Amino acid sequence: MNADPAQQTATDIVTECDKAVEAMVSAALAEKYPSFSFMGEETYKPGMRLGPEPTFVVDPIDGTTNFVHGFPNACISLGLAIDRRPAIGVVYNPFQDLLYGGIAGHGSYVTRAGGPKRSLPLSGNPPPLGALDSALVCFEIGADRSGHNYELKLDVFRKLTASKLDGGHMVHSTRALGSAALNICALAAGQLDIYWEGGCWAWDVCAAWCILAEAGGRMVSGTPGQWESAVEGRNYLCVRGAPSGQENLVEEFWSTMGGRTLVYDS
Amino acid sequence: MNADPAQQTATDIVTECDKAVEAMVSAALAEKYPSFSFMGEETYKPGMRLGPEPTFVVDPIDGTTNFVHGFPNACISLGLAIDRRPAIGVVYNPFQDLLYGGIAGHGSYVTRAGGPKRSLPLSGNPPPLGALDSALVCFEIGADRSGHNYELKLDVFRKLTASKLDGGHMVHSTRALGSAALNICALAAGQLDIYWEGGCWAWDVCAAWCILAEAGGRMVSGTPGQWESAVEGRNYLCVRGAPSGQENLVEEFWSTMGGRTLVYDS
Repeated sequence: MNADPAQQTATDIVTECDKAVEAMVSAALAEKYPSFSFMGEETYKPGMRLGPEPTFVVDPIDGTTNFVHGFPNACISLGLAIDRRPAIGVVYNPFQDLLYGGIAGHGSYVTRAGGPKRSLPLSGNPPPLGALDSALVCFEIGADRSGHNYELKLDVFRKLTASKLDGGHMVHSTRALGSAALNICALAAGQLDIYWEGGCWAWDVCAAWCILAEAGGRMVSGTPGQWESAVEGRNYLCVRGAPSGQENLVEEFWSTMGGRTLVYDS
Repeated sequence: MNADPAQQTATDIVTECDKAVEAMVSAALAEKYPSFSFMGEETYKPGMRLGPEPTFVVDPIDGTTNFVHGFPNACISLGLAIDRRPAIGVVYNPFQDLLYGGIAGHGSYVTRAGGPKRSLPLSGNPPPLGALDSALVCFEIGADRSGHNYELKLDVFRKLTASKLDGGHMVHSTRALGSAALNICALAAGQLDIYWEGGCWAWDVCAAWCILAEAGGRMVSGTPGQWESAVEGRNYLCVRGAPSGQENLVEEFWSTMGGRTLVYDS
């Protein structure tokens, strides 16, 4: 999900399944909504840009590495963007029968294994966010394993985890689950506090972004100081819904980067 | 689950729930099996040792940090050791209704959400293990965040993930889920390839060890060269069941430690 298509590595496994699912989805959507645009991982060409018109933004399989290894944390991510903003999101993990959905202005929810539809966040009254030292942080090393972005990720990982005596922020712990869409949905559910992701694409985040925003969460930029982020920004910092503490936690996370930022072609 | 009880940190959260569950479990077991010994996380005292007699080895809640944050990856871990070896294991994650079980010599299985009982590994014919560059690795930073063990973990994390041009082993990816017992069960299922854990205790591993071994997996020591590990060894390297490749993968993993090892009081 993370690698630049021009620099495929062993971690960027594209299966026939990916292409078959995207072809099926795009054909079904084109029949029902012929005037809407479509952007999908498998048919994306460098230089394509999200326009203001209604656009389906689709990742047929997010968490491809998990999918290949049989680790049950992969999903289909179906977003609809209007005016380049997430308007509808559906994320489905068939391996755990976990269905997330959200519509801008109408809330978001999750259904597990055919059970009841539950509003997000799962706690109707989520606790305030504290500092990083009380946070459960989602941290993915990603597919780029050398150079500036990788070194920055390693440095931030140390800053996040190290004890305060050693200059770190001593987070409660870190989690790495291997699917950007499902990570963001876990934040929407209130199960994780903050998640930094760089290098992923519009189709990795569009659907889950809508679900998170409707659950009171925020998507800002992974670049320190940028409180607005674009669906195509490729560098994100996501924080769960909370009655207070979002801004302070974002600023503390940004401070771990020491004035640097992840850099990607957009 | 990882912290030394003598050095509790913010990441080592003990809830009343932990104690209540252990009291309930130990009372129920003592009534049915009055001659068996019991070792549990909440009633452990430094210096206690697993004896050769049948002993229940119980973690009432493994994945305490997840439990506190509402991240649905926590479990009860019920092991029975005989002659200090895992003989029976039951691991139950109520948040995903996921039940693992194993009996030495009789196989292991999983049941999800009341569905069918499936033998482990889930693929009756698991693929051979390749090198680290094709492995999905479970890596937990743990609760100790300074000193020798922490620095070794960070160094190994870099060695595992870095590109080969930079001297790394370029693993497919890393996962961190926050429960030793459930991590080992995921290896038993064949969903992860290899998992290094230091600092956890007999009750974190006893039940899942039995489940993994019955699924063809192996538990060796996290100390390079030590192919035998004890339930109380506190330093483990676990590898999934496979028709070939286990030894080579273990040796490659050990090589990332550069002759060092994690050090814990036993």
